[in-house]
Amino acid sequence: MPHINVSSPFPGITGLLEERLDSSEHVRDLTQALLRGPSSLTEGERELIATLVSSRNACKFCTNAHAYTAARYVGGMDVVQKVMSDHTSAPVSERMHALLTIAALVQGDAREVDEQAIAHARKAGASDLDIHDTVLTAALFCFYNRYVDGLASDYPATDSYYETLAERLTTNGYERKGLTK
Amino acid sequence: MPHINVSSPFPGITGLLEERLDSSEHVRDLTQALLRGPSSLTEGERELIATLVSSRNACKFCTNAHAYTAARYVGGMDVVQKVMSDHTSAPVSERMHALLTIAALVQGDAREVDEQAIAHARKAGASDLDIHDTVLTAALFCFYNRYVDGLASDYPATDSYYETLAERLTTNGYERKGLTK
Repeated sequence: MPHINVSSPFPGITGLLEERLDSSEHVRDLTQALLRGPSSLTEGERELIATLVSSRNACKFCTNAHAYTAARYVGGMDVVQKVMSDHTSAPVSERMHALLTIAALVQGDAREVDEQAIAHARKAGASDLDIHDTVLTAALFCFYNRYVDGLASDYPATDSYYETLAERLTTNGYERKGLTK
Repeated sequence: MPHINVSSPFPGITGLLEERLDSSEHVRDLTQALLRGPSSLTEGERELIATLVSSRNACKFCTNAHAYTAARYVGGMDVVQKVMSDHTSAPVSERMHALLTIAALVQGDAREVDEQAIAHARKAGASDLDIHDTVLTAALFCFYNRYVDGLASDYPATDSYYETLAERLTTNGYERKGLTK
């Protein structure tokens, strides 16, 4: 049960975002721009970053939501599971290995993103924009995970909800207008 | 030196936010709504939450920026320093002691926000909205701190910059239109 009264029937972040629309519209717009807007990272790569960070923060709702969403972009849950269990050996590009390593450092203590991690990413072909967006996206999910778990938001009644959510997030993105179920 | 090329001359978060205006306008709007918009928390209380979280994340730029800003709202740096060194005994209300304790839990592992912390806040007069906004604000600064330190953004040449920044943040808030120096 959430720590506060949440009037929306939606579980997880979706219900929380209905609580204060004056702030949540900006949260949604930021997420839409960063995860679905023009980017040098694919939607799948961005969702893998969201999944890895959420997994490392042990945020069950966000991990499931973004794992199911990433799976639709990257060709199945197997790749996503491998990213979560060991992102340095998962079947993604060397550039993504390096960017996921940066994301993992940001999730812990961001001051530990060092020259070595950046050099590794550059050597694997990452651009300044790739690095910027990786750090920004990893930081954004440190925000989301804390918002969701700090208020003990509800879990869905069944895990099939995450498929419904992933369908919405791959079809309509993060904007509220896509919120129907 | 930042990990990526930052073309803006502004140090810290201000320079980073100039890098991708399509996402940063939403970051600014969210911060403006949450820290300066209608709220059951005063501007000073919200800035104290920002300061405590940034301090616990050891984010030097954000800690200074919000400490100097909070000081202008709460009657001096002495109170702010006391919040940073021990928020449970600092000269703020019992309600703020409880809310700062929640913010500190969110900064670490948000899953540790427990019934006891919530009950303490309620007993001290905190509303659902107070608790919601405390968690959301603490989470937002976990985002900011990671964005700033994950990219190793520049520090200002002198600490007097933080007074300039605090002047802007208390006068114009977090909107870009106030960005002149």
